[in-house]
Amino acid sequence: MTATNHTAPHPEPTPRRALVLFAHGARNPEWAEPLRYAQSVLSERLPDHTVTVAFLEFLSPTLTEAVMELAPTHSEIVIVPWFVAEGGHLQRDLPQLVNNLATRYPAVQFSCFPPIGTLEPVIRAIADAVVATLSAS
Amino acid sequence: MTATNHTAPHPEPTPRRALVLFAHGARNPEWAEPLRYAQSVLSERLPDHTVTVAFLEFLSPTLTEAVMELAPTHSEIVIVPWFVAEGGHLQRDLPQLVNNLATRYPAVQFSCFPPIGTLEPVIRAIADAVVATLSAS
Repeated sequence: MTATNHTAPHPEPTPRRALVLFAHGARNPEWAEPLRYAQSVLSERLPDHTVTVAFLEFLSPTLTEAVMELAPTHSEIVIVPWFVAEGGHLQRDLPQLVNNLATRYPAVQFSCFPPIGTLEPVIRAIADAVVATLSAS
Repeated sequence: MTATNHTAPHPEPTPRRALVLFAHGARNPEWAEPLRYAQSVLSERLPDHTVTVAFLEFLSPTLTEAVMELAPTHSEIVIVPWFVAEGGHLQRDLPQLVNNLATRYPAVQFSCFPPIGTLEPVIRAIADAVVATLSAS
């Protein structure tokens, strides 16, 4: 390293977008395996994003723990609720968690997807899979 | 109606397969809207099946109530667990419910899909939807 390099301003770290797959969690850690598989699929598809998982209860990290880890190096955090529909957890718990995190990390932009189970192409994919399996039996 | 028609044996009802979309349920009935949408999509795709919904708790009908309705006119009932993964409800509650129903209705063949959230094409559809939305933003 030369003196010139040493005194040159460090390049700003590229603002990065992180994706948090946020699921309910369950007592059995194997419950999270499909979520971890989705994490690996999305990591591969989005090489310029950090893709991580977080849980409401039973499993770690919590959403707050995941965001504590991401906030120092990411300017944007997108939460993907891994739920079949919008029940109390998404209507009350998630907005409260995100509000607290937005207050704590004002430099980070937070946003949320709709619950995955409400997405039209996802429902169509489920229907396709069900029809294909029934037709084969 | 003629006397001949009247005394002719009634044709046996065709054995029919029913599909039960089985979800957790929530306090807010709107929670079930995506499930009812899936029910309508699958009803259209499978005109020779009865497609219905049932809930573990909070909403009706329960799985037992749905099967009581279906059993007299269906020879096969296929349960599609509308869950993101296999937690305690699917490892303990569902098998117990299905065992009780199979004992009560021995003429009906019961079977279960894996939880929808563990199906490879469903995870791929979720990934596609997430990637498409992020690319557009």
